[in-house]
Amino acid sequence: MNRETLTEFLKTEFRQVAGMFAIDDVGRDRVTVRLLHDERHLRPGGTVSGPAMFALADVSVYLAILSMVGPKALSVTTNCSIDFMRKPASGVDLVCQARILKLGRALAVGDCLIYSEGMENPVARASLTYSIPPAPDS
Amino acid sequence: MNRETLTEFLKTEFRQVAGMFAIDDVGRDRVTVRLLHDERHLRPGGTVSGPAMFALADVSVYLAILSMVGPKALSVTTNCSIDFMRKPASGVDLVCQARILKLGRALAVGDCLIYSEGMENPVARASLTYSIPPAPDS
Amino acid sequence: MNRETLTEFLKTEFRQVAGMFAIDDVGRDRVTVRLLHDERHLRPGGTVSGPAMFALADVSVYLAILSMVGPKALSVTTNCSIDFMRKPASGVDLVCQARILKLGRALAVGDCLIYSEGMENPVARASLTYSIPPAPDS
Amino acid sequence: MNRETLTEFLKTEFRQVAGMFAIDDVGRDRVTVRLLHDERHLRPGGTVSGPAMFALADVSVYLAILSMVGPKALSVTTNCSIDFMRKPASGVDLVCQARILKLGRALAVGDCLIYSEGMENPVARASLTYSIPPAPDS
Repeated sequence: MNRETLTEFLKTEFRQVAGMFAIDDVGRDRVTVRLLHDERHLRPGGTVSGPAMFALADVSVYLAILSMVGPKALSVTTNCSIDFMRKPASGVDLVCQARILKLGRALAVGDCLIYSEGMENPVARASLTYSIPPAPDS
Repeated sequence: MNRETLTEFLKTEFRQVAGMFAIDDVGRDRVTVRLLHDERHLRPGGTVSGPAMFALADVSVYLAILSMVGPKALSVTTNCSIDFMRKPASGVDLVCQARILKLGRALAVGDCLIYSEGMENPVARASLTYSIPPAPDS
Repeated sequence: MNRETLTEFLKTEFRQVAGMFAIDDVGRDRVTVRLLHDERHLRPGGTVSGPAMFALADVSVYLAILSMVGPKALSVTTNCSIDFMRKPASGVDLVCQARILKLGRALAVGDCLIYSEGMENPVARASLTYSIPPAPDS
Repeated sequence: MNRETLTEFLKTEFRQVAGMFAIDDVGRDRVTVRLLHDERHLRPGGTVSGPAMFALADVSVYLAILSMVGPKALSVTTNCSIDFMRKPASGVDLVCQARILKLGRALAVGDCLIYSEGMENPVARASLTYSIPPAPDS
């Protein structure tokens, strides 16, 4: 799937959250996804909340898997490990660079770095595992 | 801090999210916190979203630390590892049992189990680390 | 499997490491396993090394799964998250209390607390995921 | 610190494990470290054990921190999340590429990919946090 079809898929299958995100770029086994600046994701002090960063990491690796396997709204997250390393900048988008490290029959593993737009150092890193359901006819 | 003062603290310091949660119980080094059923936290199929479960784990361990150290809105989450193990039930609250395993000068570590109300087996487990800032006069 | 058959299994299938461990207790979905004090597991200062604690967590959850599913030397660790919280005491065994939180068809999840014998507070906690291969005739 | 001084430090301060590893390369904020093939690190089937891979990840990120801050044998691992993604090849070294993502006053975070020599895809990934003790005169 490419940027257009992934964006369409996000709008159709994840209506509740599709407006939070924009897909910047799609590569062979990686995607770049943006968490759009929004007051609702902020914590006191103007920093982006942990759950919003988790959501960004989760959707980014999910979209990277979809870009490789096609439009199957079925994978489920089984594990996430996330490190919050720096305070995000105020008033800007977060940009997440995700890549797939393993795409097996049953499990996929990806990781990502999250940046405040315009900052050099990452604000968070995460690794995620997804369980891929067996194909219907297997 | 007890149930009343923690609930008050949550309302004052975390206005954006306070309405999502209710504190059921506070013990010596543990708390039970409830994610109130709300359409906005659901994913297709009626299941509670991963970010909402992450938010529940995060706030629960945070409140457990506060119950031990008093009202300091300063600890920050530095790491979370979360396993999503079962699909939550539809239409009910999630209940999180959190405990503190270490409360050091610089770091606190806690873990939690999350249940769908009325289900015997946990839907998720998480462990979290918080960085505790040095006291102002130390 | 009970304490005797698990101990026998460990000796037969994991000869290289069987001498490191002793199984103290086996319950319905939990085991207690001991890392025997041994100079080879120590780091400068007399503390037990991180890899030795990782090995203890890994074997303990593995044995807890075996106690539930029987002698299948096939599950593989796919993920481990471990927190090192306190310095282990010198010159004593480590004792690991492991429990299974999920035993599914494809994945099992367990967690554990590790104690220095005689200390009240845990020195480490870990959660692990195992991939369970499909049964040969399924 | 460069490759020579790091290698010397490893030999002096970590005598018990120094013979397991070789430092291939040291960059500005990254190192490449090799786990030398050795029967003692194998599991049934000829695959490298999980604890040996954990040890490789742990020492690699530790050495990457040292390369930036100088010879201080004091940092301690506080958290590790590791994903085992593929079975290592038999009879070859493992090669670990580690980088530092954050080097703060109190905490450092790094991650790494581990490869079987000669294989294109990584066998494991890990992220680790180290606690850095305060300087003696601060």
